[in-house]
Amino acid sequence: MSSRIEVGVLGATGMVGQNFARLLAGHPMFELTWVGASDRSAGKKYGEATSWRLDGVMPESVANLTVSECKPGNAPKLVFSSMDANVATEIEQAFAEAGHIVVSNSKNFRMEADVPLLVPEVNADHLGLIEIQRKNRGWKGAIVTNPNCVAVPLAMALAPFKQFGIKKFITTSMQAVSGAGYPGVASMDILGNVIPYIGGEEPKVEEEPLKILGDFKNGAVHDLDAKVSAHCNRVPVIDGHMLTVSVELEQKPTKEELLAAIHSFRGLPQQRNLPSAPPVPLVYMTEDNRPQPRRDGPRDGGMTVFMGRLRPCSIFDWKFVCLGHNTIRGAAGAAVLNAELMQSEGLL
Amino acid sequence: MSSRIEVGVLGATGMVGQNFARLLAGHPMFELTWVGASDRSAGKKYGEATSWRLDGVMPESVANLTVSECKPGNAPKLVFSSMDANVATEIEQAFAEAGHIVVSNSKNFRMEADVPLLVPEVNADHLGLIEIQRKNRGWKGAIVTNPNCVAVPLAMALAPFKQFGIKKFITTSMQAVSGAGYPGVASMDILGNVIPYIGGEEPKVEEEPLKILGDFKNGAVHDLDAKVSAHCNRVPVIDGHMLTVSVELEQKPTKEELLAAIHSFRGLPQQRNLPSAPPVPLVYMTEDNRPQPRRDGPRDGGMTVFMGRLRPCSIFDWKFVCLGHNTIRGAAGAAVLNAELMQSEGLL
Amino acid sequence: MSSRIEVGVLGATGMVGQNFARLLAGHPMFELTWVGASDRSAGKKYGEATSWRLDGVMPESVANLTVSECKPGNAPKLVFSSMDANVATEIEQAFAEAGHIVVSNSKNFRMEADVPLLVPEVNADHLGLIEIQRKNRGWKGAIVTNPNCVAVPLAMALAPFKQFGIKKFITTSMQAVSGAGYPGVASMDILGNVIPYIGGEEPKVEEEPLKILGDFKNGAVHDLDAKVSAHCNRVPVIDGHMLTVSVELEQKPTKEELLAAIHSFRGLPQQRNLPSAPPVPLVYMTEDNRPQPRRDGPRDGGMTVFMGRLRPCSIFDWKFVCLGHNTIRGAAGAAVLNAELMQSEGLL
Amino acid sequence: MSSRIEVGVLGATGMVGQNFARLLAGHPMFELTWVGASDRSAGKKYGEATSWRLDGVMPESVANLTVSECKPGNAPKLVFSSMDANVATEIEQAFAEAGHIVVSNSKNFRMEADVPLLVPEVNADHLGLIEIQRKNRGWKGAIVTNPNCVAVPLAMALAPFKQFGIKKFITTSMQAVSGAGYPGVASMDILGNVIPYIGGEEPKVEEEPLKILGDFKNGAVHDLDAKVSAHCNRVPVIDGHMLTVSVELEQKPTKEELLAAIHSFRGLPQQRNLPSAPPVPLVYMTEDNRPQPRRDGPRDGGMTVFMGRLRPCSIFDWKFVCLGHNTIRGAAGAAVLNAELMQSEGLL
Repeated sequence: MSSRIEVGVLGATGMVGQNFARLLAGHPMFELTWVGASDRSAGKKYGEATSWRLDGVMPESVANLTVSECKPGNAPKLVFSSMDANVATEIEQAFAEAGHIVVSNSKNFRMEADVPLLVPEVNADHLGLIEIQRKNRGWKGAIVTNPNCVAVPLAMALAPFKQFGIKKFITTSMQAVSGAGYPGVASMDILGNVIPYIGGEEPKVEEEPLKILGDFKNGAVHDLDAKVSAHCNRVPVIDGHMLTVSVELEQKPTKEELLAAIHSFRGLPQQRNLPSAPPVPLVYMTEDNRPQPRRDGPRDGGMTVFMGRLRPCSIFDWKFVCLGHNTIRGAAGAAVLNAELMQSEGLL
Repeated sequence: MSSRIEVGVLGATGMVGQNFARLLAGHPMFELTWVGASDRSAGKKYGEATSWRLDGVMPESVANLTVSECKPGNAPKLVFSSMDANVATEIEQAFAEAGHIVVSNSKNFRMEADVPLLVPEVNADHLGLIEIQRKNRGWKGAIVTNPNCVAVPLAMALAPFKQFGIKKFITTSMQAVSGAGYPGVASMDILGNVIPYIGGEEPKVEEEPLKILGDFKNGAVHDLDAKVSAHCNRVPVIDGHMLTVSVELEQKPTKEELLAAIHSFRGLPQQRNLPSAPPVPLVYMTEDNRPQPRRDGPRDGGMTVFMGRLRPCSIFDWKFVCLGHNTIRGAAGAAVLNAELMQSEGLL
Repeated sequence: MSSRIEVGVLGATGMVGQNFARLLAGHPMFELTWVGASDRSAGKKYGEATSWRLDGVMPESVANLTVSECKPGNAPKLVFSSMDANVATEIEQAFAEAGHIVVSNSKNFRMEADVPLLVPEVNADHLGLIEIQRKNRGWKGAIVTNPNCVAVPLAMALAPFKQFGIKKFITTSMQAVSGAGYPGVASMDILGNVIPYIGGEEPKVEEEPLKILGDFKNGAVHDLDAKVSAHCNRVPVIDGHMLTVSVELEQKPTKEELLAAIHSFRGLPQQRNLPSAPPVPLVYMTEDNRPQPRRDGPRDGGMTVFMGRLRPCSIFDWKFVCLGHNTIRGAAGAAVLNAELMQSEGLL
Repeated sequence: MSSRIEVGVLGATGMVGQNFARLLAGHPMFELTWVGASDRSAGKKYGEATSWRLDGVMPESVANLTVSECKPGNAPKLVFSSMDANVATEIEQAFAEAGHIVVSNSKNFRMEADVPLLVPEVNADHLGLIEIQRKNRGWKGAIVTNPNCVAVPLAMALAPFKQFGIKKFITTSMQAVSGAGYPGVASMDILGNVIPYIGGEEPKVEEEPLKILGDFKNGAVHDLDAKVSAHCNRVPVIDGHMLTVSVELEQKPTKEELLAAIHSFRGLPQQRNLPSAPPVPLVYMTEDNRPQPRRDGPRDGGMTVFMGRLRPCSIFDWKFVCLGHNTIRGAAGAAVLNAELMQSEGLL
């Protein structure tokens, strides 16, 4: 195991940070040796500084790490970031300037023109932005981001449609409570209920997929030229965001052609057999009532996006449902896969 | 109370039948004196034949009624029907032939050209079909229906938009488990989960609103000429169906004009102060995160439709959320209001 | 309505305070004219200072009251208190000294020897402590408390057993999330889960019933001489605490004698027909699977305690289940009934 | 893998049967080659005959097995049984007569004097009953049973107390819905609710632990001489039964002695490193609010019993909470471990 690459986590005590700790425990490529958190926690053992909120218990390997302040100093070159948005800009920038590769789940840099918003199966070539980013900003390091937890399954599910020309898509999300962190959604608000609003969510869901599905040409990402409308809702589910999607296309493929595109969809993570890559990134389920967040979300380590119910839409062309595990494929797992891809590209 | 109109319920022991029993207990206009159910129950006291599934306990006034077979015979002239779809056609027809007014929640006759599919605030004039129906079918009685539990709040919420020309609307429903009857949805299927499918639901949601919002002219209902697409889902909520809706209009009203249309929306039930009429049929809530099924569904006796989050849609013109109590405004309460309207029109 | 007694609420913006506001809106005996809260809220309209967390919406009559600081000054003589425990002692004392009658839901004074811990159906005579309290403390006013939300249904359910000599009882509670206030229990903690611990709850459940069921003699309450053991748990229910109870008695009544004692149990609230008094304070349900919190808790305005499943216990003598609505009979409703009793006793 | 022992499952299409299929897929010691179900399913592929109700999807290895009738004929020598109680007696008996080893989760034979009611960590020596059973009944095969899903964690948690003389214990269970099979508990009954009754459960919980904790002497099991009382409840949890327990002992150990007994508790499954054996059968959690069914139930493959909150009981001596995964440690997993133990004892 001595050959594993040492990594750190910024914002390690929060819920996404805990997911990083869980996913990195025993990771074959990375070894978590450094955890950064607020000054309040710095100097304590991670096990003392952290109230573990995930199911199960804290991995022992991380419990004994001493929490550092979120300053570059002695952190490993590769750091994952789950910093709160209100401090992420400054801290992530400081790390990138100091030569670190920051693989971030925070939203702050996602829509910057020179920062990759990466879904490795979809737009691995956007890593080409790193060179531009370094030139623009004079950084030795770099910042690479993963998308919002709804944008990931949405962009992945739509990726096989891209070849047919995506003109418009409209989506309604039914999102799990784990997406709101801890304590997050009060039980009084969500037990036996639906909340038809998630602050700040709809703009991200409407913007990010267009960048993810965009083309990298001449040193820039050219967003997909499509219209998007999103309705975001919270439902009483622990993990797994369900989406209904209607999509209008330029070409008129048959259902068989679409299913073939979905079934054959693969990316570099599968070709290179990256540790966190699911064997099949898009699994289409044929049962009428699937996928379902509780039954399907956690399968394959939470990295698969599930689709179902592809059928004609009487307004647009096609409609379907899709599902992604929000704290894994939509957050920490996404970032880990991003780092695995960068390692395989020789970028670490 | 001797002046109340005697009424019966067909299919009285099922869940919608129980809702009829509950709503009719102490009703100022109607007195429940007759309950019909399957041969298996006939002859027993309602209290013995029925496993009460609603919250609270069975009203005493109904517990002592003796269950009759579902045959016209000695039933009152006005009967509410919550028959299972597989037997409703024959039985409702037999009652209508025998001179009964059948106010039905069953789906069987809803889309028949000469049968009103009634939402009293929206299309009271469709009662004009009764004359045609009697002529066509040679019935002394009549069948009047209420829509599916999603179609009701959808049509009501869209009614104020009609004046601006509705061209298209797309909706995603998040539906409560009570809509599936008893035992209905297994707890193993829905606890902490979403089921992205409800058998037979989407076609109803796509068809019925067009008839409800249609115009009664020259003895026929001319459906609204609009395109509809629906995605129906089950969520872990007891009562109350939530919908997200995007709608495209011919004209381009401002948000203020739309809100004014919503706020001023009233119908005959309000004008005539019918017993089950909510004071304001469409209540628009201004909080970002409302309405919510658990918090708002049961207000005003479950007969109000709540709306919220009206905002521009980047694909269509406007999007919003709406909510209706599925077992009241979307089922038994809808039928009771239909009967109240018919009484006020002198049709009973 | 001009003859209603003006009342105030201390801690009016919190969740118990909101329950007071809801229960007092339209109360026939009391008129809510004064609301006190923290300095942060003082001066604002109640409707602006308060995020309404209960189902439905804020009563209009209270929304326009201006929030005062929690100082005696111009408050009405009768004030209900739902102050946080960390400030209740000082504030409630200041009001009592200044001549106010403080009817409190806070725990601070409950176990003081000269403060009534009142359940009007059970121990109305404990109001005799007020005289002692005034003598001891030199107060013109007084403090009267209601018990913890588990202690209320437990003491009420055991009251009919008292005549047979209660020696021991052991209880396991399954408590609703509303008991924890807002935001209270995080949804991540309780969805599809049970939490076998509620901080500080078990000591209250083990102490308070002994005082409630105690005898007032010679100017003092003599606690019931019984042993109690409690296991308190949180379950994913909105309102209504369920308890399993096993009880050992000195005498050996038959089941019929116990049921007769339960059925005939009444108190001063019923004799005097107090506005918040349920017609029957203990309702014994004969169905095997009742009572249930969602189905029975809210019946009769939430003031009834429901019992069921009385059967022999192979260790103690009898075991049964009971249920009380925690935010009504176990909190704000309990206090309102206490005040109604005091009014009927000429103590206001 | 050719050296694995072929096994069958009786009642393979039901929910416990599906759990057997899941647990046996890839089992290192056993290979599932035969599935028996009702005549209705016989002849079909398991994948067609079975509506998969567990989270995730059906293991491919079992989907292609052809379902047989539940008759001995060509079934493997070792069969697991999850037959419905109404047919289990006859069928299990027929298999045992025909020389099969029936490792059953059904309740029918559990309390027979010559049938082991086995929890391998607790009473492995009860396997001595097999010899008696064969003598009594003239069987070449045998029937071995595992206990009810509440009795397993209860008996395991109490096993370390046995050395101190168990006199009495009282328990309240909060049971998951998966224990009721499929469709089992209706969502209308349990969402946001507690049901204080489970048909037929309390007698099992009061009887079975006494046999499990009994001593095998002179060819018979002598039940533990203790009094038991149980209150069984259903709560809205998917998997994992929580129990509160109060226990009275003959001796008066300190808390340290009890914890030492719990911590050091091991059995033959651990000594022999059986495939389904958890490394530590009783895990005591020190956090106030643990264990919890959703967070802890599935850990270690669902075979660990978790304990917590050991503290003095003011009526009995000690009280604590415990948790077991009901469909694994309390059903299919229990039976698989029983068979592993029997294999290690040379009994297959």
